Amino acid sequence: MATVDLIEYDDASPQVRAIYDDIRRARKTDFINNFWKGLANNPEQLRRTWEGIKEVMAPGALDPLTKELIYIAVSAANKCEYCIHSHTAAARAKGMTEDQYAELLSVIGMAHSTNGLVTTMQIPVDGAFKVGG
Amino acid sequence: MATVDLIEYDDASPQVRAIYDDIRRARKTDFINNFWKGLANNPEQLRRTWEGIKEVMAPGALDPLTKELIYIAVSAANKCEYCIHSHTAAARAKGMTEDQYAELLSVIGMAHSTNGLVTTMQIPVDGAFKVGG
Amino acid sequence: MATVDLIEYDDASPQVRAIYDDIRRARKTDFINNFWKGLANNPEQLRRTWEGIKEVMAPGALDPLTKELIYIAVSAANKCEYCIHSHTAAARAKGMTEDQYAELLSVIGMAHSTNGLVTTMQIPVDGAFKVGG
Amino acid sequence: MATVDLIEYDDASPQVRAIYDDIRRARKTDFINNFWKGLANNPEQLRRTWEGIKEVMAPGALDPLTKELIYIAVSAANKCEYCIHSHTAAARAKGMTEDQYAELLSVIGMAHSTNGLVTTMQIPVDGAFKVGG
Amino acid sequence: MATVDLIEYDDASPQVRAIYDDIRRARKTDFINNFWKGLANNPEQLRRTWEGIKEVMAPGALDPLTKELIYIAVSAANKCEYCIHSHTAAARAKGMTEDQYAELLSVIGMAHSTNGLVTTMQIPVDGAFKVGG
Amino acid sequence: MATVDLIEYDDASPQVRAIYDDIRRARKTDFINNFWKGLANNPEQLRRTWEGIKEVMAPGALDPLTKELIYIAVSAANKCEYCIHSHTAAARAKGMTEDQYAELLSVIGMAHSTNGLVTTMQIPVDGAFKVGG
Repeated sequence: MATVDLIEYDDASPQVRAIYDDIRRARKTDFINNFWKGLANNPEQLRRTWEGIKEVMAPGALDPLTKELIYIAVSAANKCEYCIHSHTAAARAKGMTEDQYAELLSVIGMAHSTNGLVTTMQIPVDGAFKVGG
Repeated sequence: MATVDLIEYDDASPQVRAIYDDIRRARKTDFINNFWKGLANNPEQLRRTWEGIKEVMAPGALDPLTKELIYIAVSAANKCEYCIHSHTAAARAKGMTEDQYAELLSVIGMAHSTNGLVTTMQIPVDGAFKVGG
Repeated sequence: MATVDLIEYDDASPQVRAIYDDIRRARKTDFINNFWKGLANNPEQLRRTWEGIKEVMAPGALDPLTKELIYIAVSAANKCEYCIHSHTAAARAKGMTEDQYAELLSVIGMAHSTNGLVTTMQIPVDGAFKVGG
Repeated sequence: MATVDLIEYDDASPQVRAIYDDIRRARKTDFINNFWKGLANNPEQLRRTWEGIKEVMAPGALDPLTKELIYIAVSAANKCEYCIHSHTAAARAKGMTEDQYAELLSVIGMAHSTNGLVTTMQIPVDGAFKVGG
Repeated sequence: MATVDLIEYDDASPQVRAIYDDIRRARKTDFINNFWKGLANNPEQLRRTWEGIKEVMAPGALDPLTKELIYIAVSAANKCEYCIHSHTAAARAKGMTEDQYAELLSVIGMAHSTNGLVTTMQIPVDGAFKVGG
Repeated sequence: MATVDLIEYDDASPQVRAIYDDIRRARKTDFINNFWKGLANNPEQLRRTWEGIKEVMAPGALDPLTKELIYIAVSAANKCEYCIHSHTAAARAKGMTEDQYAELLSVIGMAHSTNGLVTTMQIPVDGAFKVGG
């Protein structure tokens, strides 16, 4: 149950339909998932978010599957149920094997544990790690 | 400033020194970072954590650099300053290029944004994403 | 499914009923939402929380609608599903328009993104921002 | 200490300088804060983020001060030290009074408390709050 | 709906069955809860996690009920619905009274509130609290 | 560096001084820590928070040390540096031994790990855990 209406293609304005069409073309499927239908209540934010996703998730210095793994990791740490499901599905669609998923889970579990320990002990950053501006 | 003493090699018990030695061998450096020095107050937890890290971060279905990128992503979402610094340094030591880091940042920024939007709108999970038990 | 019983008016002690009555008077409705029914297992905490809410959400230097927008923003960042739903409903009841909600969402999405980026990059606070004690 | 270099105007590429110039014009100050200097390592993300901020924080259905209050609330819940400082400074620059700030703090404190209580008790969402798609 | 299959005893490998058997013996019940059935997709992580839980939750300097209260507190702050339910049930099974639960809730509510206030005000740590390495 | 002034006793209003005096009496020390000095900018919130803390942290069904352990656990999961330091100091002042602290850390580390794993796998709550209203 969302706090907004989910806008279906048939009920969408021409501006929103154009973005839905672009999503369909880019993803080679007619399926528009609920996230976009919720964002469509604000066409400008729908456009900005979709443009951002297209740029960010495109192949580059990191491959698309690696990007999905990172997206799952952030979404899990941020406790976003929808995002976990949608990006786990996307990772599988992009070829994530069950062995890779098992290792992703292992890293996520370990990282949460050491994050919690470090924060509780308030470990100071080693000088050797300080490299930036 | 930690909430615990940071135990240096010279002040460590034989049990702790043996683990420090294993860390040094595995990492091919004499440097022991502060996280381990804090954990060393509880040798059993030091051992359990180090054994876990060795297993989890070893090459497998995912390569070690990809694992560090995931570790950074989780640590950032969990706001662990120490972990962000130590795993960003580790990723660079494992060959992360600045272009890869820039893309990692882009994915992290985008994921936080859509996580926040989805959660605020309470978007329901699409049936198509539901695949598990 | 809660971890506590939800205490209905008819099953409540006189102490709890008096608070329920005050909630009804203050809100000009017979409806008691589930949060209060859960808190009622500890009448002292029910009283303390309701007194706090009455004080904090009253008109003052900030108007009640602005306070609800802030409440939604915190609840979303804290991933509290119930709180997101109840305060979004409250904001609408206090006159939030769909345009205002769209802009609230835009600010929330942007804030999550820059929060995530700043934290990952560990940007140091500019001296110009430091004004407090 | 950042994980990236902070790129000063004099060291910036023409593409980055053009965005810095736009930030200066829009904000009527020569001051470029560290967030932009960190983002400048990825000029495309700098551009995308600045364009987004300009759109999102402009006056609209919500006034700019209300947007800053929301930004503070999200940043605090997300524990982003830099963002808390920069947006508290921005809110004061946009006219936030100390009385308004005191009430903002009260709402934030109350929201965190009820968020924590609701989550611990896993209170189910009242049917009356369910209005969306 | 999980992102993984939940592996039942009858479908489990001998390696997984041996761990399930150990869980049953240790807990004196045939009931295997879903967490273990999900972890069982990665027998090594199942083993490591179960060994860790056995060690960590055993009676020691803190009694098992106190450990469950701490586990609930962490799980609530981390918004883990499953973990809140499972550890609240475990705490009750270990003798948590409703009065103790009410006080746990009070501490959790207060802690979230002061955590949020302190973070928003960015209160500097008093020198008197600094004791570690 | 706080976003507010820290109000010292000598600069405080009579209303604030009365609360500072009560804190000193209750804690049997002249020391007023920075949290109260920041809250003192809003005397009403100072009063409400101090009254709440006194009630909540008093001996009851849970002893004061157990309450401090819970407070540390919440504060760490909420990444509140100040709160971690102040409540770790308070726990030690109330008799927390280093063995107890080591076990607290073990539970916190384990809980963060399983919280992260459960959330990533989106494990459904077992029917057996559902007991509430």
